[in-house]
Amino acid sequence: MTRTVVESKTKTAVIGFDEPFCVIGERINPTGRKLLAAELEAGTFDTVTADALQQVECGATMLDVNAGVVYNSNPNPNETEPPLMTRLIKLVQSTVDVPLCIDSSVPEALRAGLEACEGRPLLNSVTGEEERMEAILPLVRKFNVPVVAISNDDAGISEDPDVRFEVARKIVHRAADHGIPAHDVVVDPLVMPVGAMASAGRQVFSLVRRLREELDVNSTCGASNISFGLPNRHAINAAFLPMAIAAGMTSAIMNPTRPLEMAAIHAANLLMDHDPHGSVWIRNYKPKTAEAGAQPMRGRRRRRR
Amino acid sequence: MTRTVVESKTKTAVIGFDEPFCVIGERINPTGRKLLAAELEAGTFDTVTADALQQVECGATMLDVNAGVVYNSNPNPNETEPPLMTRLIKLVQSTVDVPLCIDSSVPEALRAGLEACEGRPLLNSVTGEEERMEAILPLVRKFNVPVVAISNDDAGISEDPDVRFEVARKIVHRAADHGIPAHDVVVDPLVMPVGAMASAGRQVFSLVRRLREELDVNSTCGASNISFGLPNRHAINAAFLPMAIAAGMTSAIMNPTRPLEMAAIHAANLLMDHDPHGSVWIRNYKPKTAEAGAQPMRGRRRRRR
Repeated sequence: MTRTVVESKTKTAVIGFDEPFCVIGERINPTGRKLLAAELEAGTFDTVTADALQQVECGATMLDVNAGVVYNSNPNPNETEPPLMTRLIKLVQSTVDVPLCIDSSVPEALRAGLEACEGRPLLNSVTGEEERMEAILPLVRKFNVPVVAISNDDAGISEDPDVRFEVARKIVHRAADHGIPAHDVVVDPLVMPVGAMASAGRQVFSLVRRLREELDVNSTCGASNISFGLPNRHAINAAFLPMAIAAGMTSAIMNPTRPLEMAAIHAANLLMDHDPHGSVWIRNYKPKTAEAGAQPMRGRRRRRR
Repeated sequence: MTRTVVESKTKTAVIGFDEPFCVIGERINPTGRKLLAAELEAGTFDTVTADALQQVECGATMLDVNAGVVYNSNPNPNETEPPLMTRLIKLVQSTVDVPLCIDSSVPEALRAGLEACEGRPLLNSVTGEEERMEAILPLVRKFNVPVVAISNDDAGISEDPDVRFEVARKIVHRAADHGIPAHDVVVDPLVMPVGAMASAGRQVFSLVRRLREELDVNSTCGASNISFGLPNRHAINAAFLPMAIAAGMTSAIMNPTRPLEMAAIHAANLLMDHDPHGSVWIRNYKPKTAEAGAQPMRGRRRRRR
């Protein structure tokens, strides 16, 4: 049974076929967030702290930390991103206690994150590109961490799911060459927008099933990509996630502050028998009024004895 | 490719593996609806008419019609239900133009419904009970209609999904003996409440897949059963339906007036590539304000020409 273990200093989370879905909070990422990017360049971290707290409060299992700002004062991320990653990892770990996912396209920023991070973070990411595999996999091995493997390679992102599956297989095999077991490779099969490619959903469901049955690996994705460009995106995401979970998807990088998507995940956990006694469901969704009504009754009964 | 064809006088709907999910509106059913039951006994049909119109407006593909009232004035449904079924079928077919599902546990009420109904209705239902099969399957053959087959038999409802699968297989084979093809048998694998049986969701997903792969039949269910007894039922139903659709479920008897469940089904159709060009999704969920804003602009442009 495939289990990918991630840890903070005090908490362990397991990504696995028989575990509740792992929600990796995506908010600490300056991509497309101008204000956050400006704050990070200015050395202000109030938004990062608030995002960390809010995502954990909303139920994130882990937090993704991405320091990918292009500074106005220095356009070279190879210089600016590693120290910013160090700072963000330390700040987030002093704020919340969930395991982290260190997210960068800059290998030195990944290394800086690994050196700064307590516990066993998830490294995000390696691809099937030769140069990238040879830069990242030795880091993964050295720090003994699990890694996200994205299914594109030197030929780019294929629209053919069979090609993406073969890229995933290549990375898993290359990881094995580096001494990294398959249970420490979490494959992102790449989610295309269903508005641009009508087969995008079916591709993901079929790929996730194959990843699980043929490669025995966990999977993740950038879930909200599926609804890009369409109206009422949250309702599409909220159907996509349970369908992907039913197919065997075990984690997603997503926004945990959206109640519709989180309810869909909690319900999917319940329906996959990954919520023993429905206790997470009942705790989250028991009507507040009934609870308030029940407490005085219990109190009264006790006083009568 | 399995296709179950149902028809009203003017409309055809297909239940099938490559079709949008078939939503069978469940509202015209006095079970648990005291006011409706009283109206039916009194010969008042305003609620039936309103329910028919509303369900079709909300997107029902078909309507289930159940006349199962126990009259205070006559406790024998064998006497009261057939004429009421005739009246309901005629009323509903004069009100809306979707195909119908004739629903009764009284064989003579099913016969009365079949005689009154124009087009090709779905008959609901036969079970694996010997007496029931021998009463219903000749009717199915005589009227050349498809039938819902519920997976219980003389031994009752088994909690073991393998037993329920074998009951389904028995009914499909018995139907074949009567000259009824598998594509005219729509199996209900029986949905248990997940609050009472933690494996209930997984059972359905696995059964639906087997029904499709091994028996080549369409499937249906009473969807809301899954959430019985739990809080926030609509959110559970709204995750269950896309998961069941991803597993291959092709129809459900459900309440089409619930927006959360219907959005989940529309999204699942989109994600299964059963909504060409996303046109149903966009028509239903395009922001109203943008639409309102766009119309005057088009008007202005036209006036300029």
